[in-house]
Amino acid sequence: MAVSYNYMLQSVRFSPKTSLFISSDCNGYSHKGRNRHISFVSTERSDKGFSADPKVDTLLDNIKWDDKGLAVAIAQNVDTGAILMQGFANREAVATTLSSRKATFFSRSRSTLWTKGETSNNFINVHDVFLDCDRDSIIYLGKPDGPTCHTGSETCYYTPVSDLLMKDKAEENRLALTTFYGLESTIAKRKADSAGTENQKPSWTKRLLLDNNLLCSKIREEADELCQTLEKNEDKSRTASEMADVLYHAMVLLALKDVKLEDVMQVLRERFSQSGIEEKRSRSSQKSGKD
Amino acid sequence: MAVSYNYMLQSVRFSPKTSLFISSDCNGYSHKGRNRHISFVSTERSDKGFSADPKVDTLLDNIKWDDKGLAVAIAQNVDTGAILMQGFANREAVATTLSSRKATFFSRSRSTLWTKGETSNNFINVHDVFLDCDRDSIIYLGKPDGPTCHTGSETCYYTPVSDLLMKDKAEENRLALTTFYGLESTIAKRKADSAGTENQKPSWTKRLLLDNNLLCSKIREEADELCQTLEKNEDKSRTASEMADVLYHAMVLLALKDVKLEDVMQVLRERFSQSGIEEKRSRSSQKSGKD
Repeated sequence: MAVSYNYMLQSVRFSPKTSLFISSDCNGYSHKGRNRHISFVSTERSDKGFSADPKVDTLLDNIKWDDKGLAVAIAQNVDTGAILMQGFANREAVATTLSSRKATFFSRSRSTLWTKGETSNNFINVHDVFLDCDRDSIIYLGKPDGPTCHTGSETCYYTPVSDLLMKDKAEENRLALTTFYGLESTIAKRKADSAGTENQKPSWTKRLLLDNNLLCSKIREEADELCQTLEKNEDKSRTASEMADVLYHAMVLLALKDVKLEDVMQVLRERFSQSGIEEKRSRSSQKSGKD
Repeated sequence: MAVSYNYMLQSVRFSPKTSLFISSDCNGYSHKGRNRHISFVSTERSDKGFSADPKVDTLLDNIKWDDKGLAVAIAQNVDTGAILMQGFANREAVATTLSSRKATFFSRSRSTLWTKGETSNNFINVHDVFLDCDRDSIIYLGKPDGPTCHTGSETCYYTPVSDLLMKDKAEENRLALTTFYGLESTIAKRKADSAGTENQKPSWTKRLLLDNNLLCSKIREEADELCQTLEKNEDKSRTASEMADVLYHAMVLLALKDVKLEDVMQVLRERFSQSGIEEKRSRSSQKSGKD
């Protein structure tokens, strides 16, 4: 049985006219440089001004639009979880997002529909759309083609209140990063800190970055210790701790190789699509002869 | 030099009266069952109705409130990146969040301030607050004490549009999950799928779940292959691919041990606070004698 991702969608067609065409696998996702136009739905104008098939109309009817016909729309990076930007969507914006698979909003200042990326080419390729329990807030879960913010920042959220409160002005932009990506950023900073280490005891991270033998021996050791928590039936907290060690040391290796966690996540996402596991199995079989 | 997390805040005091007291390390964070009240700021009422110290006033003045005095406020899980809920905040809500470190909103329907968790006890313990480039959208980045949604769901976003479009009604709730957590959920499902595997070829994940020796040999093998990409100077895509293999196989072990990725992230966050690396270094030294 193939393992498929929860948000991996299946190809379904309703009728020749109003097809509900949903990407069949990871290859259907839009990536930079490709202009695939696989969509959730085909769209047509109707009495309501903008419509698609009847199911989409029903869906749009069910969203709780505010007194201006808007709902909050949040774009989130499917691989990293980063909140890319937040805008507002009206009926047409959601319908357009569903049909084009590009995150589309309604600009309150300009009173127009706008698709993120229409000028910068940094589209957000939407994999799925989620409504909240009240149906007045929407997540566009997708993959950005490039930096989302008009300033060139990866996301629009680079102003931490803590910095503003500690200083008159934040010295540098600092993205809202969650644990995994905050650690990645810290390791990258240690890597960049080549100067200033001569006169002080280098950090453990810096030592690992400077000594491939040490780093690789630690990665192998930590993987072994993670396995031992299963083999020796150690407690859960020990497993969590050893997994944290594996992640941290492996992330130092990623930093040395200039590989981003986001790239690793993309590999995972593409691999674990419909028949990903079977593909992996056959690769493993060829490689190790173990199965 | 100690590695500290980007969003780990430092203890700063401005004056005895209006202290800007920011948590000094991970131990300062609120966890379930503890009622620490370490706050960004002390708060006092002022001419503006709600204020704290002058820096907070300036900060609040700089937020672009809409015609109703509100800004969008999004609560995000600092460890998983999950968008927990979205509400609106007014001046008082942000000031209260900064002082109490509990995500606080303004209810538009009830026209009152409300702190998430005030009835359920499932507070969202805010580690930092971020503004977007337009300063009209706010992220409360924090750790939830329990499920955020009033329905008992972990987050409010459990209604995928793709399901709604494919079926008359979504059969089951499905959270908006990013790649890492989507894979975790898929592996958990394979683990729960004990029935129905007798008459069909088990998935690779299922085989790993049923055979500890196979799983541990794969984890050790994949860690070794990841190291080889550094030792043999293989290309970046190979490193990303091997890291994905390490993650996937290690996640199967986590599933077997009933350890959540979120727990691992919490360990990472707590470990890599101010002196975390030095602590780790001393642990490693005692354990392996390698440093």
